[in-house]
Amino acid sequence: MDFQTEYKNRVSDIDVYIENYLDSLENVEPLLKSGMKYAVLNGGKRLRSILCTEICACFSGTKKEAMAYAAAIEFIHAYSLVHDDLPAMDNADMRRGMPSCHKKYGEDIAILIGDALLNTAFEIMLEHVRDTAGCLAASKIIASSAGIFGMVNGQMKDLNLSNSKDATKEKLISLIEQKTMALIKGAAVSGAAIAVCGQEELETVERYSHHLGLAFQIRDDFEDFEEDENDSHACPNFINVCGVQEAEKMLKFNVDEANKYLAHIKNNEFLVELNKYLFSEVK
Amino acid sequence: MDFQTEYKNRVSDIDVYIENYLDSLENVEPLLKSGMKYAVLNGGKRLRSILCTEICACFSGTKKEAMAYAAAIEFIHAYSLVHDDLPAMDNADMRRGMPSCHKKYGEDIAILIGDALLNTAFEIMLEHVRDTAGCLAASKIIASSAGIFGMVNGQMKDLNLSNSKDATKEKLISLIEQKTMALIKGAAVSGAAIAVCGQEELETVERYSHHLGLAFQIRDDFEDFEEDENDSHACPNFINVCGVQEAEKMLKFNVDEANKYLAHIKNNEFLVELNKYLFSEVK
Repeated sequence: MDFQTEYKNRVSDIDVYIENYLDSLENVEPLLKSGMKYAVLNGGKRLRSILCTEICACFSGTKKEAMAYAAAIEFIHAYSLVHDDLPAMDNADMRRGMPSCHKKYGEDIAILIGDALLNTAFEIMLEHVRDTAGCLAASKIIASSAGIFGMVNGQMKDLNLSNSKDATKEKLISLIEQKTMALIKGAAVSGAAIAVCGQEELETVERYSHHLGLAFQIRDDFEDFEEDENDSHACPNFINVCGVQEAEKMLKFNVDEANKYLAHIKNNEFLVELNKYLFSEVK
Repeated sequence: MDFQTEYKNRVSDIDVYIENYLDSLENVEPLLKSGMKYAVLNGGKRLRSILCTEICACFSGTKKEAMAYAAAIEFIHAYSLVHDDLPAMDNADMRRGMPSCHKKYGEDIAILIGDALLNTAFEIMLEHVRDTAGCLAASKIIASSAGIFGMVNGQMKDLNLSNSKDATKEKLISLIEQKTMALIKGAAVSGAAIAVCGQEELETVERYSHHLGLAFQIRDDFEDFEEDENDSHACPNFINVCGVQEAEKMLKFNVDEANKYLAHIKNNEFLVELNKYLFSEVK
């Protein structure tokens, strides 16, 4: 398999789907629509949406069915970044090498762009519920992973922990399980739900995506750490909370576990390569 | 009919339902949950949710079925107020005589509370889709009325118009149709959808709630106008754009039209009294 080409094709598929969907929406204020496109079509890795469509395909669902849900997941991911970047939150001027949404459009419009993306995520999911029985289940899984049992609650834990001095490994994992991992897991599990797979298979997907999500976050923390090793003001992360050695051990453990569960999923060729690609430096 | 008592009972029903629902949610960060309750259980008039459950009852649907959707509508209404009040938006320190959400909880948490309320609105709707065929239709109607074809787009038009000098009656109506009227209309029409009424009845509900929503906004503008007649910095509204006489004429016309369409809806006793109560000063 030419993984790089396969991966690029999948990123392009989802980007084209999102762009066509947003372009098709009529009578939306031009500034709002262009802001939504700016926030979501910004060169993201599309890990979440690819997980959704790939897992769906593993269980013989068609990617076409999963596309609307994959797009919804990217809308939710994008809204969370727009709101996280706001001055009252992380106050980030840049996002993926470009001005963050509020730097480009102003804070008021950025708040609205985030709201619009979240609402649109649910609109596109509801539009497609008719397609299969699994789509309603997928909508519920994604909704739950994004809200007060998932990402939003994780963000709240993050605000609490960043303001406190007593970050522990347990608190950090509990935070990351919701803030980052919930939507990654929701993406994979919703893909399985769309394909209407069995309960045992669903549980394997849950475990695979749990370890993948945790490994992904630890790897991310290492990248940030290498970029700015001396940032003593950094928020709690796996390096400054657990230390380099312990974090390396955790990363390796979770990559191995993700691979172990992935081995039980059929038609897994692309996802096996994806793990190799994401964690090429983990020995 | 003792309207005042009937009305109070309905407000209490929805408030109790919302409070019980939020209390039942486990493992939510206490500050996030208390913030959601603060934002939504703040003594609102519950016009939107009452419209949803009443219209459902008019067409022989049970209010119980409509309750989850009525609550979702209040969550959406509440989130929109939390985000509208933010410093970057209307910068409102007070809301219904209490500190606005960001004054009470800080701006970062207020943004999250709004996001949590919007997401939770969809979660509660999706949870109840199993109940009747009409519930999926209702979810779509509410989603559409809240997002880029409704409230969010109206809010964007508001930001544009407030920054320009060329407000016209037509622009103001187009703005209000989305910013305020969409969710009022969505509430009524979703109630009809839950009761699975016919197409003709649905259209009557649309027209009734269209005129009710417009009348409601004009009445609101008159109340604001009376409170602060000399506010030359006020945003465009029906008084400063159309003049008192024209606005009075529009108000009377829309109240009459709302009553006219309401007369075609069966079991309308409570809603007829509601119109009399809301527009008692319109002769």
